[in-house]
Amino acid sequence: MGAVKSKRMPRAVREQQMLDAAVLTFARRGYRAASMDEIAEVAGVSKPLVYLYLNSKEELFSAVIRREAAALAEAVRAAVEPGVSADRQLWSGLKGFFAHTAEHPDGWTVLHQQARTQGEPFAVEVAVLRAEIVEFVTAMIGAAAQEAGCDREPAAREVSGLAHALVGAAESLADWANSGGPGAGERPPAKDTAATLMNFAWAGLGRLMAGERWSPGS
Amino acid sequence: MGAVKSKRMPRAVREQQMLDAAVLTFARRGYRAASMDEIAEVAGVSKPLVYLYLNSKEELFSAVIRREAAALAEAVRAAVEPGVSADRQLWSGLKGFFAHTAEHPDGWTVLHQQARTQGEPFAVEVAVLRAEIVEFVTAMIGAAAQEAGCDREPAAREVSGLAHALVGAAESLADWANSGGPGAGERPPAKDTAATLMNFAWAGLGRLMAGERWSPGS
Repeated sequence: MGAVKSKRMPRAVREQQMLDAAVLTFARRGYRAASMDEIAEVAGVSKPLVYLYLNSKEELFSAVIRREAAALAEAVRAAVEPGVSADRQLWSGLKGFFAHTAEHPDGWTVLHQQARTQGEPFAVEVAVLRAEIVEFVTAMIGAAAQEAGCDREPAAREVSGLAHALVGAAESLADWANSGGPGAGERPPAKDTAATLMNFAWAGLGRLMAGERWSPGS
Repeated sequence: MGAVKSKRMPRAVREQQMLDAAVLTFARRGYRAASMDEIAEVAGVSKPLVYLYLNSKEELFSAVIRREAAALAEAVRAAVEPGVSADRQLWSGLKGFFAHTAEHPDGWTVLHQQARTQGEPFAVEVAVLRAEIVEFVTAMIGAAAQEAGCDREPAAREVSGLAHALVGAAESLADWANSGGPGAGERPPAKDTAATLMNFAWAGLGRLMAGERWSPGS
């Protein structure tokens, strides 16, 4: 019965299996070195079937990026508690981000290390995801400024810079946590990674929003 | 006389001109699309001369990465004031970093956007540079902890995570500042970019080192 079931597997399910195999293969080999042969083998289907469903390596890679980007954006969106204070929103968003990147290290590798440097159209898809996350963080910082009762709104340029700094810090930390590299230990729990960034970022942002500045002193 | 001078130009000077042309061309076109024809044209020399001096596109790209990485590391090293407090060391290092990346946007693009994703051996050269900068920041955070009179040293894992967060934030901000993208304005002055990150990072790090923690509260 298992064999019959497998043959009758709906197209959508088969396609997801191919995408799973593609994420794994692209993450391990890189876009250029990954072969359709290997992807078909990992997926347990024939190469012609992969071409039939997804046309070309380019389209397969695009489909992978779209799926992984949508999953990451959705994980962050779903994690953020609505209607709470800005710091709690950031905290819940960071927990969602690091939980997702820790659970899907291959997807994160494809998005962050590979897609954005393979040129059009892949880079554009990832840039859209990144812009969406930067926008969320920018809104959060704006909300934080309001909560802090800022006399005057912080300059748009500074808020944008802060948002880019925070997103870059999160990307770098996700790579570090997934690498288990020097000092990262055996892949730290996602909540610990989120706490590291929250502690780093919030106290800094919080003070900034309250109008405090670091000064080089005398 | 100009022509004679140009013909008698020492090899080292010619080589630097070729590397200058290569940085420009790689930054604009990307590694794969950049052609030796265009590099020779930009350098104002013949293509055979480029091959004679630098052997191949691969070796030329390697030479570019080594030169740009060494220049960036040296700029940061030279900028850091020795023997001052940890926050002033970080501030001077950040000013050096953002001044250099703003003055050498093509070199920064090659290092950050291209080299680390073109596989071996290029990625390794950039990884060495990044590791060196992470190490400097790690030592700085350690010194900050000592200055703050931390009862117990912060866990090595957390210090490493903070260093990676700070470096990722700096990389992201350098891209943002150089892009002149949304909110970045017309390429903000390097000192302003450094101040944005310093304000963001220091108050956060400073509090952390003093043993304060952000807490999700009730």
